[in-house]
Amino acid sequence: MRSHFCGLVDESMIGQSVTLCGWADVARDLGGVCFIDLRDHEGIVQVVAEPSDADGNAAVVKAAAAVGYEDCLRITGVVRKRHSVNDRIRTGQVEVVATAIEVLNKAEPLPFHAHENAGEDIRLKYRYLDLRRPEMQRMMRTRIRLVQALRRWLDARGFQDIETPILTKATPEGARDFLVPARLHPGEYYALPQSPQLFKQILMVAGFDRYYQIARCFRDEALRADRQLEFTQLDMEFAWVSERDVQDAVEGMIREVFREVIGVELDAEFPRMTYEEAMRRFGSDKPDLRIELELQDVAGLVKDSQFKVFTDWATHADGRVAALRVPGGAAFSRKQIDEYGAYAAKYGAKGLAYIKLGEDGTVNSPIQKFFEPAAFEALVAAIGLRKGDLAFFGAGTYKVVSDFMGALRLKVGKDLGLVQHAWKPLWVTDFPMFEWDDEEQRYVALHHPFTAPAVDDIADLKANARIAVSRGYDMVLNGNEIGGGSIRIHRPDMQSAVFELLGIGAEEAEAKFGFLLDALRYGAPPHGGIAFGIDRIAALMAGTESIRDVIAFPKTTTAQCPMTGAPSPVPDAQLAEVHVSVRPKADKA
Amino acid sequence: MRSHFCGLVDESMIGQSVTLCGWADVARDLGGVCFIDLRDHEGIVQVVAEPSDADGNAAVVKAAAAVGYEDCLRITGVVRKRHSVNDRIRTGQVEVVATAIEVLNKAEPLPFHAHENAGEDIRLKYRYLDLRRPEMQRMMRTRIRLVQALRRWLDARGFQDIETPILTKATPEGARDFLVPARLHPGEYYALPQSPQLFKQILMVAGFDRYYQIARCFRDEALRADRQLEFTQLDMEFAWVSERDVQDAVEGMIREVFREVIGVELDAEFPRMTYEEAMRRFGSDKPDLRIELELQDVAGLVKDSQFKVFTDWATHADGRVAALRVPGGAAFSRKQIDEYGAYAAKYGAKGLAYIKLGEDGTVNSPIQKFFEPAAFEALVAAIGLRKGDLAFFGAGTYKVVSDFMGALRLKVGKDLGLVQHAWKPLWVTDFPMFEWDDEEQRYVALHHPFTAPAVDDIADLKANARIAVSRGYDMVLNGNEIGGGSIRIHRPDMQSAVFELLGIGAEEAEAKFGFLLDALRYGAPPHGGIAFGIDRIAALMAGTESIRDVIAFPKTTTAQCPMTGAPSPVPDAQLAEVHVSVRPKADKA
Repeated sequence: MRSHFCGLVDESMIGQSVTLCGWADVARDLGGVCFIDLRDHEGIVQVVAEPSDADGNAAVVKAAAAVGYEDCLRITGVVRKRHSVNDRIRTGQVEVVATAIEVLNKAEPLPFHAHENAGEDIRLKYRYLDLRRPEMQRMMRTRIRLVQALRRWLDARGFQDIETPILTKATPEGARDFLVPARLHPGEYYALPQSPQLFKQILMVAGFDRYYQIARCFRDEALRADRQLEFTQLDMEFAWVSERDVQDAVEGMIREVFREVIGVELDAEFPRMTYEEAMRRFGSDKPDLRIELELQDVAGLVKDSQFKVFTDWATHADGRVAALRVPGGAAFSRKQIDEYGAYAAKYGAKGLAYIKLGEDGTVNSPIQKFFEPAAFEALVAAIGLRKGDLAFFGAGTYKVVSDFMGALRLKVGKDLGLVQHAWKPLWVTDFPMFEWDDEEQRYVALHHPFTAPAVDDIADLKANARIAVSRGYDMVLNGNEIGGGSIRIHRPDMQSAVFELLGIGAEEAEAKFGFLLDALRYGAPPHGGIAFGIDRIAALMAGTESIRDVIAFPKTTTAQCPMTGAPSPVPDAQLAEVHVSVRPKADKA
Repeated sequence: MRSHFCGLVDESMIGQSVTLCGWADVARDLGGVCFIDLRDHEGIVQVVAEPSDADGNAAVVKAAAAVGYEDCLRITGVVRKRHSVNDRIRTGQVEVVATAIEVLNKAEPLPFHAHENAGEDIRLKYRYLDLRRPEMQRMMRTRIRLVQALRRWLDARGFQDIETPILTKATPEGARDFLVPARLHPGEYYALPQSPQLFKQILMVAGFDRYYQIARCFRDEALRADRQLEFTQLDMEFAWVSERDVQDAVEGMIREVFREVIGVELDAEFPRMTYEEAMRRFGSDKPDLRIELELQDVAGLVKDSQFKVFTDWATHADGRVAALRVPGGAAFSRKQIDEYGAYAAKYGAKGLAYIKLGEDGTVNSPIQKFFEPAAFEALVAAIGLRKGDLAFFGAGTYKVVSDFMGALRLKVGKDLGLVQHAWKPLWVTDFPMFEWDDEEQRYVALHHPFTAPAVDDIADLKANARIAVSRGYDMVLNGNEIGGGSIRIHRPDMQSAVFELLGIGAEEAEAKFGFLLDALRYGAPPHGGIAFGIDRIAALMAGTESIRDVIAFPKTTTAQCPMTGAPSPVPDAQLAEVHVSVRPKADKA
């Protein structure tokens, strides 16, 4: 149907006849001579229809004049050197003089033009037009190349690509399951997997040694801008390994795919940081190291002041008083400072104290009066406040202060242009095994209930659960957790002990995870793994904030697909077949 | 944790110390000298623990003596030449003299032994033990290598691997949808895709040119031995192509992966056959060409007989009278012939007439009396019946006779050992566009409603719908339809006309397929594609009858997973969240 791709026509073809297929990106009639920019997935080439003595030429010019935006065309013509070279396109040295134009499919007037930046709802409704835009093609292709590069790396190293079920068992592991009624089993349901976690562990017990899968996962959670109902992860598992084996292997993989796909050379060795250090210095377990600002603990410097909020938390066992130096922040207006206060409040701050040190050395601070002059001076010096700087202060529980000061650090960094143009990966390790859930009055797993603790001794773990450290690890890149994994529990007694600590009784554990406990009883090898968020990594590589730019058919934040109209009502007969009915609104469980 | 794989220890390592991880395949204590066959995914190596003067040797021998089936072990030892070579295993020239044995995880007594052929239910319940068997590892690896080879071929040719949604719109296309209640939209449902058909067409409209996906598909249909609720297909689509472009490309692909994965050289050019020819000669649209027997139409030879069943159908517009010559079939007993009759009855036969021609030339046939001697002789001659042969006859509607005579042909071929050890691929083309559904009194699509008809003219299609031929094609291998595809409709007016012929009104078409019709309105290119059944191809390559042998975690014919226990009841609170309740049994729609 075609001899060449539009975007690949070049000077070597001058004088040659070519047949091209594509869409009319632009069509102009300049007084009898018509120009069509013909576009396919490789790019654009200029087609000219001009009067000549050739047979049928009049028909060609007439056809060209009738071409409209996004008409689907098949054009035959002769390549020639272009008079006015266009340096912005790859084919800019040449043009194609049309000898035949066939309209394969005429386009109706467009709901939005490919060149304009339409709203996301209309873009998603007419996704096929949106995806035609070269920018979208480029971003989607980045994702495709990422996945290819990952597979190439994995296949070359003997990782086995194994599919795990999508229709599986409901085993609440944290997030909400999507349910699928079972037609053959009235009152029973399949669940879509939140991840292939248990299956990949079972595969290690089954002797597959090294596994991977580009796996679709499902979480019925509130959709934020960067979340989708279904998402894709590179899921990996290794038998007979320690954490360092996994980390070294996948660090090499990530380094290679960044080099291959976007030509970026990441650190030869990723920095490593414990969870404790990350929270202390950056107020986050996924620190963005492109911003050099760090939090500073000042409890010791403020505990003798008269400022009650500071003194209370500075002496509280679970308290934290932290400062963030903002270079040049003395220029902030009162309004700006209030806005930062409001921003921090969204992350749990009750208030945001500050010290401004003017360019002329004058101090402006609502908390100065609570300090002895020498103590105040010592505080300013310890923070390293220079003329023209400002420091924000937060006080409260360790977790809350870390959260809002960490968020503030990111915001200040972005607002002041302190984010380096760089790629800053790191490993975060030594996560707490458990978090205490005040509401439910029980421990919850920080990673998941299958993560091995650092200690091998069950009595030790039980005695020191509150401070127990896990063998989990996250790979962080520019403030995004792009991968997370752990060494898993491979002994049934340890797995039972962890279930018990999480308040999962023996009976419940057997009902929900009996098959895992069984599997561990038949010679399960030590194993561990990791999962990488493909959507996020692709978005980072493509240079977009939104993962929706690297997903062909994403859903909106209201969990809908504007193109197909999913979800939608279905006939009652279809519900009857699967033994469910729509529940009246008032009928709470 | 290990220095080498068990299955890869070889003579080059003699004298070297190695550390191996694996499972105890067999362990024997022969009077103080212990032998352990240590197994990993690469194979088995023999480990010996024998008394010596070395430090700690007594502990090693003691540990070895305590090893049981499937214990998970880490063993260090020195490689030496084996006294009695074992030719059946790759490592049979060597053995490892243990210097340290660590039990990483003791196995409890096994529910079934890896070496025995346990029932499928127990194998699926303890799938991790079942999958450890080298035979299962081999079959699973065949599948993995098939998918790798396909991807390599596709990636090298610029096909773009794009993921399409799993949570999508319910659009009944034939099979029953799986439904997923939408939490944010009470009374609305997502459906799991029966195939990415519409998405891949949309991707062509979106300018992706060539697409593929190893796609999970879902059909809530009766499970037969070779069906699963979820299955995997290689889904492909091409823009700007004719059927021959698609066929030539994928024929080359299939040829290459067979060569690469199992070293089989398929025909340099696959035979091609129309649907009409396949039904006529083989009574099937997926003929198994390994069996040389063919059906023969004998209406002209029997229409003047006195046998009413023959004469009725021989002169019926939609009738068929066909014969199948069975070489050596004269040896069949009356009981055997009756059994074949019963078999044919399962496929719709009302009766099965026959002619037996004994080795001595005597005829035995219940229908002989209805023929003039000359006519009978002519019939016997036309069928090519030789001494010692038998011929079966079927009469009825064209479709029913083709079905049961086609099934009979396969059964006779298998029973008599007439199935060649060979790979016999072919293309079947020129399918009917529509089938008339007597029950619903309307046309149904033989492929699917998006398949293009061979004619471009809508009036022509409408006038001749009953005999219209589509641009669909199937790839058949050894009696299995391994791939099916078509050129799609790319014009909105033709798509609407086909919907209309299928009894889908304009309103219903708009509600269900509006987004497709929309997409066709904005310059959709001509396009077509195909989908291959990965599970089936993998099973064929692995030499197994059951696709469950090449699926890590398959479901049973009752749609259950004996390992995880899916599907299962869920708490009512979970149903309330997604706005459904269990429907009482009596509450029909």
